[in-house]
Amino acid sequence: MTDSATRVAIYGPGAMGLHITRLLYERGVPIVAAITRPGSDKVGKDLGTLAGLPPLGVPVRCDAEETLAETAPDAVAVAVDTYLNQAMYDIYATIVRAGANVLTLAEEMLYPFPTSGARARRLDELAKRHGVTVTGTGHQDGYWVGLVSVLAGSAQTLHTVEGELSWNVDDFGPAVARQQHVDSTVAEFGEWLAGAARKPTFGRTALHALAAAIGLTPGRPETRTTPFVAARTIPCAALGKDIAQGRLLGYTDTDILHTEEGVDLVISSTGKVYEAGEADFNEWRATGRPTLRLRNDRVMTRDTTCTTLINRIPDVVRAEPGLVTVDRLPQLRYQASLGKASPGRASAG
Amino acid sequence: MTDSATRVAIYGPGAMGLHITRLLYERGVPIVAAITRPGSDKVGKDLGTLAGLPPLGVPVRCDAEETLAETAPDAVAVAVDTYLNQAMYDIYATIVRAGANVLTLAEEMLYPFPTSGARARRLDELAKRHGVTVTGTGHQDGYWVGLVSVLAGSAQTLHTVEGELSWNVDDFGPAVARQQHVDSTVAEFGEWLAGAARKPTFGRTALHALAAAIGLTPGRPETRTTPFVAARTIPCAALGKDIAQGRLLGYTDTDILHTEEGVDLVISSTGKVYEAGEADFNEWRATGRPTLRLRNDRVMTRDTTCTTLINRIPDVVRAEPGLVTVDRLPQLRYQASLGKASPGRASAG
Repeated sequence: MTDSATRVAIYGPGAMGLHITRLLYERGVPIVAAITRPGSDKVGKDLGTLAGLPPLGVPVRCDAEETLAETAPDAVAVAVDTYLNQAMYDIYATIVRAGANVLTLAEEMLYPFPTSGARARRLDELAKRHGVTVTGTGHQDGYWVGLVSVLAGSAQTLHTVEGELSWNVDDFGPAVARQQHVDSTVAEFGEWLAGAARKPTFGRTALHALAAAIGLTPGRPETRTTPFVAARTIPCAALGKDIAQGRLLGYTDTDILHTEEGVDLVISSTGKVYEAGEADFNEWRATGRPTLRLRNDRVMTRDTTCTTLINRIPDVVRAEPGLVTVDRLPQLRYQASLGKASPGRASAG
Repeated sequence: MTDSATRVAIYGPGAMGLHITRLLYERGVPIVAAITRPGSDKVGKDLGTLAGLPPLGVPVRCDAEETLAETAPDAVAVAVDTYLNQAMYDIYATIVRAGANVLTLAEEMLYPFPTSGARARRLDELAKRHGVTVTGTGHQDGYWVGLVSVLAGSAQTLHTVEGELSWNVDDFGPAVARQQHVDSTVAEFGEWLAGAARKPTFGRTALHALAAAIGLTPGRPETRTTPFVAARTIPCAALGKDIAQGRLLGYTDTDILHTEEGVDLVISSTGKVYEAGEADFNEWRATGRPTLRLRNDRVMTRDTTCTTLINRIPDVVRAEPGLVTVDRLPQLRYQASLGKASPGRASAG
């Protein structure tokens, strides 16, 4: 392979996968393959056309093994599902066995060891055997982990580190809207919440990543969840319908991770359908001495999720093999030369 | 040495050195020596007493070589002067030759290669020969470099990265107040500014560190400087006098560092005597796509300068030998176990 630029494949050409496609195309990163599930009506269509770009000569395929073997990407951007369930494990394992690095937006993959430990360890071993790296990244990598760790680096004493943020369900497509229980009734939501089916929250995973980044030893996690109810009828673009007054626009998860060092990490995350005029924010406060404050206003979460993954490509390609969480990567930064030069280890892939 | 905690010495028991002393004492870090210049009226006094603490059994001494040889600190916190002039080089070299790591608040030392290249390279070689690390850190490490690099890590395109911040001269003692031309007339200030004596600004140094952290290639630097004039009489604690209306409270430096990648880095830093009710802030905006924003309100710059240095101790003790700038250290973080356990390489010191 004489071409020195990192060659990327898209796994999951949904809302996020197509946004990553557009951003990679703009930055001149070669996109060599696109993979979806068998039976998808996207199979056979050109990835560029689906993304609203000129045709890229990259047909969406559903034969993952063959596609990866034929196209030999250095890195695969995965935007399929949140949790490290068996189906997602199989997707990551297929990519790893093909010798490609994995960057995934799956929230649990930011730090999957506490919640899906057996599969995470299996994936870590598999990636080590194949000499590639698997990393979960996205908005939370920079805004919930990196910035917060640096902020806390100016603390003399640290009692709590508390984040409050909100994101717009309409930026992330119907799968995420359903996960946020948009259009549920309060009763339905309460029933779901009381049941045993509650999965680990995004916030809990992020707090584990933050604890690792700060070097704190995680103890007991707690989650409190409250519905966010529509005060009037609000249109939901992700579901293509109006949400009636009294039904859910989404919900707030407040996660607390107690640590053995006595520092409580807290994240209160509201994912809901926005009304006109609302914008994402991300605000953190570290109590202790001195009190430390950080706020990001008008955050474009959908963009920053995808751009963070893209700026992480060189870090992941260069990282040691295994399931490497973001606390073990170099400090996040803008990659000015992406698409222009090799980040290193790629040429061996 | 069976004691595994990192043993620290203070070089320069002025306002900042004594603040570092108090913070280290609180965190249980052993303080083993204190050094000042010959002729200082602090010689012979107990460092703890000078810092408003119980006596520490650490007399301030002015025989640096002998003190370092007898007390064998792992790391020396230096808070003496801003620039890497010959006198400061001699201080760092004395510490390095004694086999101790150096953490300094000297602003130019955050990234001294562009402005004091010959001395910086000499110090780098000396530190490598002696197996120790010399690092300039402080508030700017986290707030002007680390946070900004992580923020820019969610950019798709980056045109400018612009910081605006202010700090209170009264937090830093008389040496800094004189550097900020507090109590000068506008004419005196204009004369100084027009003359050849202008030294590199803090901002220029910070922009070079930021460029290194983001991986950008620095080009031409520019500095514009404007006086900040008292609108009424303002008391200045650092100089112990009132600043009359029309005289300088300080000044604003606006630095621009053009980079070969086409990204302009800008920092506008106002250091002045504050009026009642004013507080430090630190605000950054990255233009390009998407626009990225970060703001720290009510920043306690005097504290964060010292706490950042303290949280950097384990990083510097563990770092490779040489003059290692903060862009080459791990991501800044809170060090919960400081004063409790060895960070590693110290035992070889």
